[in-house]
Amino acid sequence: MAPEVARLGHVSLETPNLEESLSFFHDAVGLEIVDRVDDTVFLRAVDEHDHHSLSLTEADAARIDHIGWQTAEPEDVRKFAKKFEQQGFDLTWIEEDEEPGQGEAIRFEIPNGHRFELYGTMEKPEPPAKRQSKLKNRVYDPSGNNPVAPHRIDHVQVWDPDGFECAEWIRDELGFQVQEYYDEADGSRWGTFLSACEAKIDIAVVQSEHEDDLPALHHVAYAVDSPNDLFEAHNAMNEHGVPVDGIGQHGISRGEFMYARDPISGHRIEFNTGSYLTLDPHWEPIAWEAGDISDGDDHQWIGGIDSLDRVYY
Amino acid sequence: MAPEVARLGHVSLETPNLEESLSFFHDAVGLEIVDRVDDTVFLRAVDEHDHHSLSLTEADAARIDHIGWQTAEPEDVRKFAKKFEQQGFDLTWIEEDEEPGQGEAIRFEIPNGHRFELYGTMEKPEPPAKRQSKLKNRVYDPSGNNPVAPHRIDHVQVWDPDGFECAEWIRDELGFQVQEYYDEADGSRWGTFLSACEAKIDIAVVQSEHEDDLPALHHVAYAVDSPNDLFEAHNAMNEHGVPVDGIGQHGISRGEFMYARDPISGHRIEFNTGSYLTLDPHWEPIAWEAGDISDGDDHQWIGGIDSLDRVYY
Amino acid sequence: MAPEVARLGHVSLETPNLEESLSFFHDAVGLEIVDRVDDTVFLRAVDEHDHHSLSLTEADAARIDHIGWQTAEPEDVRKFAKKFEQQGFDLTWIEEDEEPGQGEAIRFEIPNGHRFELYGTMEKPEPPAKRQSKLKNRVYDPSGNNPVAPHRIDHVQVWDPDGFECAEWIRDELGFQVQEYYDEADGSRWGTFLSACEAKIDIAVVQSEHEDDLPALHHVAYAVDSPNDLFEAHNAMNEHGVPVDGIGQHGISRGEFMYARDPISGHRIEFNTGSYLTLDPHWEPIAWEAGDISDGDDHQWIGGIDSLDRVYY
Amino acid sequence: MAPEVARLGHVSLETPNLEESLSFFHDAVGLEIVDRVDDTVFLRAVDEHDHHSLSLTEADAARIDHIGWQTAEPEDVRKFAKKFEQQGFDLTWIEEDEEPGQGEAIRFEIPNGHRFELYGTMEKPEPPAKRQSKLKNRVYDPSGNNPVAPHRIDHVQVWDPDGFECAEWIRDELGFQVQEYYDEADGSRWGTFLSACEAKIDIAVVQSEHEDDLPALHHVAYAVDSPNDLFEAHNAMNEHGVPVDGIGQHGISRGEFMYARDPISGHRIEFNTGSYLTLDPHWEPIAWEAGDISDGDDHQWIGGIDSLDRVYY
Repeated sequence: MAPEVARLGHVSLETPNLEESLSFFHDAVGLEIVDRVDDTVFLRAVDEHDHHSLSLTEADAARIDHIGWQTAEPEDVRKFAKKFEQQGFDLTWIEEDEEPGQGEAIRFEIPNGHRFELYGTMEKPEPPAKRQSKLKNRVYDPSGNNPVAPHRIDHVQVWDPDGFECAEWIRDELGFQVQEYYDEADGSRWGTFLSACEAKIDIAVVQSEHEDDLPALHHVAYAVDSPNDLFEAHNAMNEHGVPVDGIGQHGISRGEFMYARDPISGHRIEFNTGSYLTLDPHWEPIAWEAGDISDGDDHQWIGGIDSLDRVYY
Repeated sequence: MAPEVARLGHVSLETPNLEESLSFFHDAVGLEIVDRVDDTVFLRAVDEHDHHSLSLTEADAARIDHIGWQTAEPEDVRKFAKKFEQQGFDLTWIEEDEEPGQGEAIRFEIPNGHRFELYGTMEKPEPPAKRQSKLKNRVYDPSGNNPVAPHRIDHVQVWDPDGFECAEWIRDELGFQVQEYYDEADGSRWGTFLSACEAKIDIAVVQSEHEDDLPALHHVAYAVDSPNDLFEAHNAMNEHGVPVDGIGQHGISRGEFMYARDPISGHRIEFNTGSYLTLDPHWEPIAWEAGDISDGDDHQWIGGIDSLDRVYY
Repeated sequence: MAPEVARLGHVSLETPNLEESLSFFHDAVGLEIVDRVDDTVFLRAVDEHDHHSLSLTEADAARIDHIGWQTAEPEDVRKFAKKFEQQGFDLTWIEEDEEPGQGEAIRFEIPNGHRFELYGTMEKPEPPAKRQSKLKNRVYDPSGNNPVAPHRIDHVQVWDPDGFECAEWIRDELGFQVQEYYDEADGSRWGTFLSACEAKIDIAVVQSEHEDDLPALHHVAYAVDSPNDLFEAHNAMNEHGVPVDGIGQHGISRGEFMYARDPISGHRIEFNTGSYLTLDPHWEPIAWEAGDISDGDDHQWIGGIDSLDRVYY
Repeated sequence: MAPEVARLGHVSLETPNLEESLSFFHDAVGLEIVDRVDDTVFLRAVDEHDHHSLSLTEADAARIDHIGWQTAEPEDVRKFAKKFEQQGFDLTWIEEDEEPGQGEAIRFEIPNGHRFELYGTMEKPEPPAKRQSKLKNRVYDPSGNNPVAPHRIDHVQVWDPDGFECAEWIRDELGFQVQEYYDEADGSRWGTFLSACEAKIDIAVVQSEHEDDLPALHHVAYAVDSPNDLFEAHNAMNEHGVPVDGIGQHGISRGEFMYARDPISGHRIEFNTGSYLTLDPHWEPIAWEAGDISDGDDHQWIGGIDSLDRVYY
């Protein structure tokens, strides 16, 4: 059987100042610190069982290191490795626990320069006893959580100098499903929104403005319950002195959003809610054309994104 | 490849008075009427593309006719048919459009007497032009919806005289994944909560009280956004004079609920929200034991279900 | 005893096209039509007992006719009349039912040109029987309401060429309480937020940009329950093709907002939620200074107002 | 001018174990500890400016000491004192700061045995600098609050052996307004819901079951934003192992509720939301009769109260 990607797992980020970045990701956003090894801190959201959905490493500059995808079966890592080696890709093998909690993995640059990691297994550490929920199907006791803590990683959005090509590669070689896409008036593809799990959008690939732009990450999205939570989170960001890049609702995906940005690294978190599930086995991608959503260049239905700044590999 | 079930599709119900039942399902609950053929009305929720997620047929008594499951591929219907014929099941073939909007299907009784339908395709009719949303990824314009209209079918809950056996059959023969289960102090299985799509619970199989109880349906659950919506829906039920069987939060699945019951037929709708996704490819079923949730016989975390009345095949 | 104003009652507006304006105020916003006399339609919100909180009259242009304030006692109308006549104001007497549902009233221009009405009593017509709530303390059955219908009038915001003077007059002559005010860096007053009822803000008086600007109305605010409702209302406005002038949260008053504008008349409704009550008998006005809220010229805490267009008397 | 009561200020409670009670009122419910003098802790809600809305004193048993009402003017305390002395009441004078933060006050038993305190002024201490909101009209920075912390005291509910007489005394002698009342089929008064501020219900006086029942307190209500918050607070109570006495919606007042009870003292907090304002100067009390709300003895619209246990003076 062909190897498959099951879901978005985590994003590995670098920051010039780990402590200051933690005051954003942990103190303001409410991600939980699970582990700390050398200059790297591993975080997860309060409704996540897995070891981490985000890692922060202190480095000379703010960068994204890789986006981690979990395969459907552990052995799919080797199947993918074999296939991509045959295609001439330069793979880096990551041994079990080299990235803490994680099984054997490969990392490599996909055609347009994004660095992906494919791994099969991830440990599921329990939270500290006093933070554990009494409900067996809930990880952390919510009464001890940061009031605005999001639940789980939802998706990533990347910029690519040839977004159409990049999205096609992800669809064809990794087996993702296209959920929605947006074409400009000249027929060029502005953005493609793909799913690894067939149930929701996992990655948005958006066309960058200039041909020689480097591939980059715009944001990592985490899920919250409702637009109320977006306002509560925005209030918390303001109280923490954290910059926010807009509140509103996407046309594409229909999800409501609020973007907060780590002041020291520029890494951006989207608080996201309200999208739909695509359990339909015959899902036809939603095909947007220029003019379908009139509200600005970034095709929002409500409000807008105030900053297109991004972080490079 | 082995045939697969992709998702819960619809439930087919019978009622002694179609018009009165419509005043519940349409006027009070807010399901949309898509089609009417002879004595059967086909309804769907406002965020559903498919032709129907519930049908109501006037008959001499209130009964459930069948639970419809969509296969992953259209050809899986024939693969399942072949397999179940070989196992000696008595299959009824349903031709394309015999159930309006639906492709070729089979219906049969599973071992403990529940009647399942497996179908591969379903039409996706557009709503009337004046009801259509301006957002291409939304079916109905919400400003024209019933204020409490739920979004989409979520799951069904059935009673079975041997719930353990029934759930095992569904897992083993249809390939469902067990998400959670609850065992009594004597080790007997009280309930099993299974997923057809691996992302969420699609069917709860609960042990009925007596050995000679017939298999039955307790409720069809539809998804709403938040506990606020449960209170709004409960208010609407009260205003419509519709009986409600409790508001609260399940321990199992963690979903918040409100149960409303059609006065004429006894068919029950759960307004449901707040459960989690299981995108983890290595999901380990949550194993509840007696005493894990102390709040009453029905293992709720908040509130309770006030009626165990059910509808038979 | 000195006469007192009890609360904001209603706003009387003119529009060049009554039917088109109704498609905004009734169809999109969800105000209920209570009465229609000649070219005037009287509307109220779904949680209002009084005959109207907004009237729309067809006229040659979009204008505001008057802002209606209810006095604490019916006899306060005559007391106010006597006082303002002695001060040389030119009063217009409005007989009982000349404005339908309303008792005897006076209308007059306050110093900077806003036209106020003071009335003592207002009829409380029941809704049509089939729209009436089963709860005796609720007016309309919410299950029949427009899904985004706001509950009650909350406040008005006016522009004034000398906002400081205007606000002082309202405080001193009508006995309003100042809840908050905002001073620019040069010490000039940007805005004063006053209460007629001492429990919440009823009128915001904002300094207009130029000395020769005419007094004007920026918006009439209606209350909803939560930020969720702001997003739902914004969705409804988009579906109705109604322009929206921003979503966010005020610094002053702390209320979350969304502004929708009648395309034909330019009259603007604020959907508002989240402000606080001032039951404190020794409330000290919140004194904002330049720099206290950094988010733009209009001193918002989240988001912003996209249009300062206004409607004149 | 006759003296007036402006609003409900605070409730003074006794507990057999101060630390255990604080783990309820502070750790679970989220009230802030403002001050501690000897065996008494003074708490307030996160949106309250005043020194305290609840005090807890360690004593030999769980009791209510008094309910504190703030007068409209400081001199109203002496006016009330003069009047009640003339009526033969036995007043206890409380000097300034004898109850910390509070100005001069009187305490006395009203006819049926409830102990009321009337005070004119209360200090408004700032929160600790690191907890202070950046918004000048908000007390605590919400990002540092307990996630379920209610905003402000809303009302109290007392039991009285002659509730009709008690409510009439409060109306006639303290000048409260009756907002709603409920009469049984035999014409007897079950409950009266009064307002000190004319804007909302401040005290519910309910008829106790037996003639020789002592006057008692059933609960102190604090306001939250929405039914979502009731579910979140209920989850927090469950996680803290705190008993909950029901979730639902009152018919009377229309407010949604959730009751949590201090395990050691039996003092009960209502998390409350959704009631209406009565700014109408001619408010007519809502007159409920037997049968108007069919949902149980305690006249709820949704759900019910599971415990009528109360705490005595």
